[in-house]
Amino acid sequence: MDDRHLLTLLSDFGLSDIYVGVMKGVIARINPSLKVVDITHNIPPQNILAARFCLREALPYFPAGTVHVAVVDPGVGSSRRAIALFLSHFYLVGPDNGIFSGILAENPVLAAVELDNPEYWHTPTPSSTFHGRDIFAPVGAHLASGVPLVELGNPIDPETLVQLPLPACTHTATSITGCIQYIDHFGNLITNIPGSCVRAKQWYIKLENQVIKGSNTYADSPPLEAIALVGSHGWVEIAVNGGNAQSQLQLDWKDQIEVNFHDISISKL
Amino acid sequence: MDDRHLLTLLSDFGLSDIYVGVMKGVIARINPSLKVVDITHNIPPQNILAARFCLREALPYFPAGTVHVAVVDPGVGSSRRAIALFLSHFYLVGPDNGIFSGILAENPVLAAVELDNPEYWHTPTPSSTFHGRDIFAPVGAHLASGVPLVELGNPIDPETLVQLPLPACTHTATSITGCIQYIDHFGNLITNIPGSCVRAKQWYIKLENQVIKGSNTYADSPPLEAIALVGSHGWVEIAVNGGNAQSQLQLDWKDQIEVNFHDISISKL
Amino acid sequence: MDDRHLLTLLSDFGLSDIYVGVMKGVIARINPSLKVVDITHNIPPQNILAARFCLREALPYFPAGTVHVAVVDPGVGSSRRAIALFLSHFYLVGPDNGIFSGILAENPVLAAVELDNPEYWHTPTPSSTFHGRDIFAPVGAHLASGVPLVELGNPIDPETLVQLPLPACTHTATSITGCIQYIDHFGNLITNIPGSCVRAKQWYIKLENQVIKGSNTYADSPPLEAIALVGSHGWVEIAVNGGNAQSQLQLDWKDQIEVNFHDISISKL
Repeated sequence: MDDRHLLTLLSDFGLSDIYVGVMKGVIARINPSLKVVDITHNIPPQNILAARFCLREALPYFPAGTVHVAVVDPGVGSSRRAIALFLSHFYLVGPDNGIFSGILAENPVLAAVELDNPEYWHTPTPSSTFHGRDIFAPVGAHLASGVPLVELGNPIDPETLVQLPLPACTHTATSITGCIQYIDHFGNLITNIPGSCVRAKQWYIKLENQVIKGSNTYADSPPLEAIALVGSHGWVEIAVNGGNAQSQLQLDWKDQIEVNFHDISISKL
Repeated sequence: MDDRHLLTLLSDFGLSDIYVGVMKGVIARINPSLKVVDITHNIPPQNILAARFCLREALPYFPAGTVHVAVVDPGVGSSRRAIALFLSHFYLVGPDNGIFSGILAENPVLAAVELDNPEYWHTPTPSSTFHGRDIFAPVGAHLASGVPLVELGNPIDPETLVQLPLPACTHTATSITGCIQYIDHFGNLITNIPGSCVRAKQWYIKLENQVIKGSNTYADSPPLEAIALVGSHGWVEIAVNGGNAQSQLQLDWKDQIEVNFHDISISKL
Repeated sequence: MDDRHLLTLLSDFGLSDIYVGVMKGVIARINPSLKVVDITHNIPPQNILAARFCLREALPYFPAGTVHVAVVDPGVGSSRRAIALFLSHFYLVGPDNGIFSGILAENPVLAAVELDNPEYWHTPTPSSTFHGRDIFAPVGAHLASGVPLVELGNPIDPETLVQLPLPACTHTATSITGCIQYIDHFGNLITNIPGSCVRAKQWYIKLENQVIKGSNTYADSPPLEAIALVGSHGWVEIAVNGGNAQSQLQLDWKDQIEVNFHDISISKL
């Protein structure tokens, strides 16, 4: 028995327009028994970095065999490739623009194809602006319905997939420096510093005119005060108890963040 | 076998309140095996024109037999009729206020009833403010579960359905003039000028103090520059590569838009 | 046959991040055949009062046997209890912080447990920040799949559950005074004055510098004028026909509202 049955969608289409509904209509026409789960459709428009983070963080929580369709696609209509990948136990479908490079950093690609077989598209003459509807959603539906990956197009070399690496953390005897890799809708600032680096240590974050103590839970700080902790994603993050850290601290995507330790024994990254 | 099984919802209820969840609860009580797809619930409040556009554009992508429930209903509690319609291969349920007139312009109505049989309502004494919960969602659930249309109420003459027509495009030897019929959440401005009028032609849009060249894809223009193209809906639209056309160009719903051609052979509308 | 099969989710996670999608992934891993309905994920951040209202209003519309998972949880990581409850014909799963006290006021608790059995968690070492993913969603999925409530943890005394009562309405010979208990996304102001108090009466609401007549439907007032009516929730509410009552009237959560009658016969509360 094939364990494919579930299809997820992630995009920057928002929920105000019909784009997401239309993709689900196209999927239901191919196989009405498929189950579709939205990861999110509110990726900031064309923000490939945000899509990269969200896919990497969310995908480990889904069942084996899930087909993940992701459409954050500023290059739609240009020559960027449309791809489908098979990793250890799940499938990825979307544009080859780096949105998958977070998840690829941790899971080897076992098979990769370019989506050049129009038999599995919604139409042999896709629009130049909405490949989510015309190519990615229908290909995902066919894949989740059991069509073999190799039917979807010609094989490509996984080495040629577009990568979008983050700057690596740097560390000294008493500090680790990283950056903000994601900001959630509470305004929580998620760095690329792994939580494992600060566990069982005394630590703090030094901003221009503020020191934020490393802590364990949101409730550890007084209301409206900034707090640093290891968030649910497993990264060091900065939050404000009952408030919005991004606006209160005037920090933004990719801003540099420095974790400092009270002692000098730093775990290796 | 009846091919009804799928029910879609479209409304202006937003996703902040419980209204959409409650409609799904009412549907699940009638038939927990029905599949429900949200087209969108973020129609601008009481904007019948937006609902009309979204229904017309989205419905062709859904399977035959689908029951579409639409609730943008500023006249709820007044004497406006509640209706259900059968078109060539799908069903419509909602208020008779013009929201269906876009889809009706392209699909003949084969049967129409007024929803005056309380047997299929959530309650025989519906509220005066939330017919989505009390009438439309339950009627849609019964219809998608196989109840014949004629059971739902007395037949009405399709000629009497409320229409909401758009101004027709006008054209000269060198131009076509239409209007903005929809603005999506990216700020893309969608006109009522069919894409077929500009295909294989040299064309541009002249605004008060700017000329926008007709193009093929979003990627054809430099970042933050306006571009005119045939969008995924099949209409001439104006976008800004990586930006928001509505705010950047200061254009709004129903504003007039003129497409100009470099040669004088214009395809007939 | 067990009638559990449907699981609802309510939270303040919003739809911009991956939190809701991740909970659904965790649920699908436990039982991919469960049906999940979102009540709403846009509860104002950490607003327990709003969650309390939404749960009380929405739950009666769902089928018997439904498992409701609610996560508005400012105390996550602190010592607040995680609980599951069985009421007359449905289940509640979430933090013990008062979010269920609205629904509990009307439905006796037949069984209550503290969620201290890690066998039904996503992981035996849950994060300190996201119990929705690590405890509540997986426990809800197991419960909806037929696991007995008593398996989930040790029984607790329902009398010890955290309560979050609203101030009771007060009344005189000619008036009833209550407060705004909820504001929906249209800006409609929902009081805690039951609609039954004003039915078949002449009534009005007196604000600082405005009198609002009691009415039957939104359409009864001219556009952009304030109107008082019994809303779809069954409470006295204030709306603006085609507008936003909250911003137009400068009223807010918990503000006091006084209903006045033209005659002096007031129905008992």
